[in-house]
Amino acid sequence: MHDTNRTEIASLGEFGLIEHLTRNNETTQAGTLLSVGDDAAVIDQFGRQSVISTDLLIEGIHFDLMYTPLKHLGYKAVAVNLSDIYAMMATPTHITLSIGISNKFSVEALEEFYEGVYAACEKFNVDLIGGDTTSSKIGFIISVTAIGEVAPDKYVTRTGAKVNDLVCVSGNLGAAYLGLQLLEREKKIFLENPKIQPDLQSQKYLIGRILKPEPRADIVEWLQGAGIVPTSMIDVSDGLSSELLHICNGSNVGCILYEEKIPFHDDTRAMATEFQLGTAACALSGGEDYELLFTINQEDYEKIVRNNDISIIGYITEKGEGAHLLTKGGNKHKLTAQGWNAFA
Amino acid sequence: MHDTNRTEIASLGEFGLIEHLTRNNETTQAGTLLSVGDDAAVIDQFGRQSVISTDLLIEGIHFDLMYTPLKHLGYKAVAVNLSDIYAMMATPTHITLSIGISNKFSVEALEEFYEGVYAACEKFNVDLIGGDTTSSKIGFIISVTAIGEVAPDKYVTRTGAKVNDLVCVSGNLGAAYLGLQLLEREKKIFLENPKIQPDLQSQKYLIGRILKPEPRADIVEWLQGAGIVPTSMIDVSDGLSSELLHICNGSNVGCILYEEKIPFHDDTRAMATEFQLGTAACALSGGEDYELLFTINQEDYEKIVRNNDISIIGYITEKGEGAHLLTKGGNKHKLTAQGWNAFA
Repeated sequence: MHDTNRTEIASLGEFGLIEHLTRNNETTQAGTLLSVGDDAAVIDQFGRQSVISTDLLIEGIHFDLMYTPLKHLGYKAVAVNLSDIYAMMATPTHITLSIGISNKFSVEALEEFYEGVYAACEKFNVDLIGGDTTSSKIGFIISVTAIGEVAPDKYVTRTGAKVNDLVCVSGNLGAAYLGLQLLEREKKIFLENPKIQPDLQSQKYLIGRILKPEPRADIVEWLQGAGIVPTSMIDVSDGLSSELLHICNGSNVGCILYEEKIPFHDDTRAMATEFQLGTAACALSGGEDYELLFTINQEDYEKIVRNNDISIIGYITEKGEGAHLLTKGGNKHKLTAQGWNAFA
Repeated sequence: MHDTNRTEIASLGEFGLIEHLTRNNETTQAGTLLSVGDDAAVIDQFGRQSVISTDLLIEGIHFDLMYTPLKHLGYKAVAVNLSDIYAMMATPTHITLSIGISNKFSVEALEEFYEGVYAACEKFNVDLIGGDTTSSKIGFIISVTAIGEVAPDKYVTRTGAKVNDLVCVSGNLGAAYLGLQLLEREKKIFLENPKIQPDLQSQKYLIGRILKPEPRADIVEWLQGAGIVPTSMIDVSDGLSSELLHICNGSNVGCILYEEKIPFHDDTRAMATEFQLGTAACALSGGEDYELLFTINQEDYEKIVRNNDISIIGYITEKGEGAHLLTKGGNKHKLTAQGWNAFA
C-alpha cells in the first residue's frame, strides 16, 4: 500500500468513495440501462428488464449478535435487500445468499438464521437460488443479492424529481433508530449487571422496527393499482435527510421539507422524549426505517391522499433554492446528510 | 444459540452444510430453472435464460494481503466468479461488487484493487453495475455476483454425465497449489529474516496461476464453435478429486481417472519435486486452478482431440463401480474429496 500520497477513506465518506472509485466505470453491454448509483441496477434482458441489488452485512458494523435473534437477522438480511428492489418500483423474484461463519456457530444456530431467510422469501414470494458458504475467523458476514423484474422502462430512479413535485413518505420514521438506542442501553445495563433482565415487552414496536423491518411491497402495489407513477423513489435506509439529498442531487433540484409533516408513531415520540432526542432528528439522521421516500406530480394529489399510510412531507424546488427543512418554529435549516459515515 | 443439541459445523463440512441448510428450500417462481447446488443458478426471464453465481472472499481465509497485490486481488475476485458462469457454458455480462474495508486502507490502495476489477471486466466484456461499500473492523471482505446469459436450455450442469462419456479437462492442474506453497514458504522466510528478499522471478508461471487465474472463456468459445455440447461441466476450484465427485454424485455415475493422463506444466512437476509432493496429489486436492472439467459423448472424440489444450483424463462408469483413480503403477484408489473443509 502507498505511504506517499495517502488519502484517508474517511475524507471521502461512503458515498464519495463509491463515486470516486466508479468515476471511470464505463459500461459496454448494450443491455446495461442503469449502473452504479441508484438503489439497484437495471439490465435489459431480451426486451424485458431485470433489477439487481446487493448488500453486505458485517457483524459488529451492521448487527450485534448480543441482542439480534438469528432468525430475525436472516429475515432482515433478505428484507433490506428486497427494499432496494421495491424502491425501483420493481418486483423481487430471486435472491442469492452468501455467508461467512466461524466455528462458534452451531448447525442449529445457522438453521435459525435460515428459518428467517426462508420466512422472508416466502412472505415476499422470492426464490433462494444460490450462494456461497465459507468459514470466517472474523465474525459473521452476510451478502445478499436480489433480482427483480419490472415492465420495460417502468422502473423509478432517484433522478426524475421535477420542480413542484410533492415529496411523500410511507409509514412513519425514526422508530428503528430509537429501537436501536433502546437495545444499546439495555445491553449496557446488562453488561454492567447481568442479573438485571431487560424488560422490553412494552417496547415491542420500536424493537420490531430495528430487528425485523418490513420492506414496503404493499406501497409499491398500491401505487401501481392507483395508477401513480412516482417521478423518483428511494428507500430510507440511512435517514430521511441523506435520502432526500440523494433525490435532490440526482434530480438536480432543491426541496422544502416540513418538520411538522414528518410522520411518527406514538411510541417514537414517547421514547424520543425519554432519550431527550428531537423526533425530527431521529427521522432525519436515524436510518434503517426502510420506508419508501418518493416524489409525485401534483396531478396525483387527489389519489395519494386516499392512502392514510402515505404522508406528504414537502415539495420540490429549483436547485438554486437548495434543500431545506422548515421547522415548526418557522426557521429554515439547510438539510445535511449528517447520517452515517462508516469510515469516520 | 443452543447449547443443548449442539451440532458442530465441521461435522458436516462445507458441502454437507449447504445441503443441510437448503434441504427444505422450495422454489416457487415459475422462472427458477436451476437452484442451489451447481456452479450457478439459472432463471428463465421472459423466454431467455440468465445464469447467476456469487462468491464471498474473506481476508485471512481466501487471500493473504502480505503477498497478494491488490490489483491482482481485484482481478481474481471477478475472474473466479466468471469462471462459474463459463462452467455453465454461459456468457457473463454483468457483475455486482460489494466490499467491506477498514480504515487501514487508503483510497489509493482501493484504486489499485478497482484497477484489477476493471481490467477483468474489460477483458471478459462484463459491466460492473452495482454493489455496496461498507466499513469492516475485521479485515477486507469481497462479495461478487456475476450474471450471464445462455441460449434457452443450452446451459450445462453437473448432472448430465452418462456411462462411457469421456472425462476432459482444460489446461493443466496443480500449478496454483504449488504457487501458493511457494508464496507461503517465502512469507515464512521473510518473517523470520526480513532482510532476505524473495526471488520469485523464476517462478512467474506458478505464482501467476495462484494470484491471477484466468477463467477459460476461450474453451467455452471453442467448444461452441466446434459444436461440442458437454454432457456435464464444472470449474476446478477445490481440486480435481472433489469436482469429479460432484459430477459423479450429481449425475449418479462412477468414473475411472487415469493418473498418467492428468496434464501438468513442467514448472509444476519441478516444483512438486522440490516440495517432495506427488504431482497427482497437487491436482487432485490442490484447487484454485479454475480450469474446466467436463464430460462429452464418445461421438465427440474426433473433435475434442483437435484441441491441444484439452486432455482426456478418464471415462464415466456405472455408479456401482464407484469413482476411482488408476495410478501409473496400475493400482486402483477410491477417489475422495480430501479437499478443503474450511470448518475443520
